[in-house]
Amino acid sequence: MLPFELTILGCSSATPTSSRHPTAQVLNVHERFFLLDCGEAAQIQLRKFKIKIQRIDHIFISHLHGDHYLGLPGLLGTMHLLGREKELHVYSPPGLEEIIAVSHHHSKSHLKYNIVFHAIEAESAKIIFEDDHLSVETIPMNHRIPCCGFLFKEKQRMKSIIKEKIEEYNISVQEIPLIKEGKDFMTTEGKTIPNAELTHDSPSPRDYAYCSDTIYNESYVEQIKNVNLLYHEATFTSDMEERAKETYHCTAKEAGTIALKANAKQLIIGHFSARYRELEPLLTEAKQIFENTELAVEGKTYKIA
Amino acid sequence: MLPFELTILGCSSATPTSSRHPTAQVLNVHERFFLLDCGEAAQIQLRKFKIKIQRIDHIFISHLHGDHYLGLPGLLGTMHLLGREKELHVYSPPGLEEIIAVSHHHSKSHLKYNIVFHAIEAESAKIIFEDDHLSVETIPMNHRIPCCGFLFKEKQRMKSIIKEKIEEYNISVQEIPLIKEGKDFMTTEGKTIPNAELTHDSPSPRDYAYCSDTIYNESYVEQIKNVNLLYHEATFTSDMEERAKETYHCTAKEAGTIALKANAKQLIIGHFSARYRELEPLLTEAKQIFENTELAVEGKTYKIA
Repeated sequence: MLPFELTILGCSSATPTSSRHPTAQVLNVHERFFLLDCGEAAQIQLRKFKIKIQRIDHIFISHLHGDHYLGLPGLLGTMHLLGREKELHVYSPPGLEEIIAVSHHHSKSHLKYNIVFHAIEAESAKIIFEDDHLSVETIPMNHRIPCCGFLFKEKQRMKSIIKEKIEEYNISVQEIPLIKEGKDFMTTEGKTIPNAELTHDSPSPRDYAYCSDTIYNESYVEQIKNVNLLYHEATFTSDMEERAKETYHCTAKEAGTIALKANAKQLIIGHFSARYRELEPLLTEAKQIFENTELAVEGKTYKIA
Repeated sequence: MLPFELTILGCSSATPTSSRHPTAQVLNVHERFFLLDCGEAAQIQLRKFKIKIQRIDHIFISHLHGDHYLGLPGLLGTMHLLGREKELHVYSPPGLEEIIAVSHHHSKSHLKYNIVFHAIEAESAKIIFEDDHLSVETIPMNHRIPCCGFLFKEKQRMKSIIKEKIEEYNISVQEIPLIKEGKDFMTTEGKTIPNAELTHDSPSPRDYAYCSDTIYNESYVEQIKNVNLLYHEATFTSDMEERAKETYHCTAKEAGTIALKANAKQLIIGHFSARYRELEPLLTEAKQIFENTELAVEGKTYKIA
């Protein structure tokens, strides 16, 4: 089974603590590494958890609050100092290119590699990355500034043909791709062999939804329906519901409610306020609504299935 | 004795490692806290070492390479979120105000406190801060972009008068400040009492020189002559001398040479290249030139005397 797994680098909200870092995470899709948000010290966390910095070719930034991108300038500099030459793609709401340009202007930095900035219009769901194996869609969030989550979807892979059947029915090279796509086969004697006898089904495609930061709203529930893994921000416990609304954030209960309504298979909650020394109350609250919930733990890797 | 001590927050050069952070340090002068450079994750280090963030009112940035200031935007945001209202002074070569302004523009941040940016002309030594107890001078460095170190000097305090002598010679309230300044006293009988009999000397003023980043040059040796504590960058060992020159940095041997020529009492070396897993070779090299050398160690506090 090709890897599809998430490693948490930072699970804190705006103010880091001595043990929790601002938001950043790495998604490994078939041994390609995607960075989602890049809070301060993300590059140090990457080193600590032995994730190779230069394997990251695509960085997705949800919004331009500092706790979601202030680790990026340092990471870009380190990629340069370590000799990077291959292109890097950075997706974010507009403004990031200007922020990086001003900083590079004053440090007189000239990177050895090219950065392609993709300015995202965060207000509606759009596919912003696609290849043969994967698509990435924005998930519109409702926050104080333009903000979106990201939905990573594996593509359905073709069926695999059972080798013995090729010989048995004398199947030609030309026919194989058609059978992989699902067609039945007709022998020279005119007998139809049903596709199911010739192939193994490929595994179901998996998906991952990253939702941070947002006030509670159900506008994206339909988009993430039946998702394999949902990461949802859960900045506060429910006794802080008013504070959550004021700051356009969610409670753990609300994160659980989104997971329930979306019929997610699994929920990870994160983006914890610095006021919580212990995180169990947040977990307990989310689990009361949606049982299959885990806390985001820095350095932990979660398999998506 | 009033405290005058240095705590290292980060001792790495441009690329951090999993255990060493970019440059940042805190100087405690009589329970006032001055931040010198603010590399990425400085705010996390401050929390880890239990230094109260809001006690910092003055931040000095040597130059605008990312490893010396990228922790600043996050620290400024945290000061705001923790409710700061008092003014903050930030000293750096020109450009930092624009960098912060662009970042705040895109995050729609409006801080509750005022930041006073002091743009430093780094090419010549100048007093940039002064009050009754302390002065801070820039130390011109020779780096790839405008860069200066900082020299913190305690002021000579007045002598303290010996209480018993006030009664013995019937010294009036008006006379006391003059005696503290060093004047002799004349009794009503016309007898002169020498100042030395009436007072204790105040302790000698102490000073601290922070020198990072620079190519080897002796232009500032005279300015830091006889300094109590010299922190000097020592990015490389001497076998990398060519690389040091190319990148406008110093070797440990060169740091030792500056300490020797300046007749410093003590040397701390830091700003270590990520290539050194073990730092002993750097220490050994500096000690061969200047015996009283220590390594910068994150979280360690060095008393200045």
